[in-house]
Amino acid sequence: MAVEQYRHYIRQLLSERAQRASNQQNAQEYEVQTVFDTERDHYQLLHVGWRGNKREFGCILHLDIKDGKIWIQHDGTEVGIANQLVEFGVPKQDIVLAFHEPEVRQFTGFGTGESKETSLAS
Amino acid sequence: MAVEQYRHYIRQLLSERAQRASNQQNAQEYEVQTVFDTERDHYQLLHVGWRGNKREFGCILHLDIKDGKIWIQHDGTEVGIANQLVEFGVPKQDIVLAFHEPEVRQFTGFGTGESKETSLAS
Repeated sequence: MAVEQYRHYIRQLLSERAQRASNQQNAQEYEVQTVFDTERDHYQLLHVGWRGNKREFGCILHLDIKDGKIWIQHDGTEVGIANQLVEFGVPKQDIVLAFHEPEVRQFTGFGTGESKETSLAS
Repeated sequence: MAVEQYRHYIRQLLSERAQRASNQQNAQEYEVQTVFDTERDHYQLLHVGWRGNKREFGCILHLDIKDGKIWIQHDGTEVGIANQLVEFGVPKQDIVLAFHEPEVRQFTGFGTGESKETSLAS
């Protein structure tokens, strides 16, 4: 599967979540941001702002594309974006659960992120 | 001062920091990332990876440009990027310390982020 397709999937999933979150909010200075750095292949979803006198600032999702693979650096969702990507047809080997220690990734059923492992993306 | 100039300053300050941080590191899976979303005007510096069996993931700096002003959403630096921007000649009125409550910003000497306040950027 082509890397360009991976970029599309990631942007789609993050945008949908941001849209859903925005529909649920009406606080004046609160927003769910999508941050897409297509040049460096970093993709984020984060919430930022104020709800009354409570500060909100945190990353919900952070994904990178490196060497043709999708690296999930942070996932604060319940469904697990890795599962959604697999549903889209992304091979597990092309998904790295980077929040797991490098040594244990071989037992996750997903990619390890080691450079000797080849990507299935063309 | 033009917004395009603000974008340039932010990218310059974040890139310099990322460069300095990278020079100090040689762990295999650790990096300081710059995330520049120029379409939505979100700019981040974050550290991500592993040092031995310790996970590193966190935002160092997050800035937005909204309505011609620079919103500092998060600043984990000692020097304070607001001060660096002022040194570049950015008027304090065009900098919003968004991590302070909206109500107290009028006492910070910087912009409040209220829409009735006009930006000096052309």
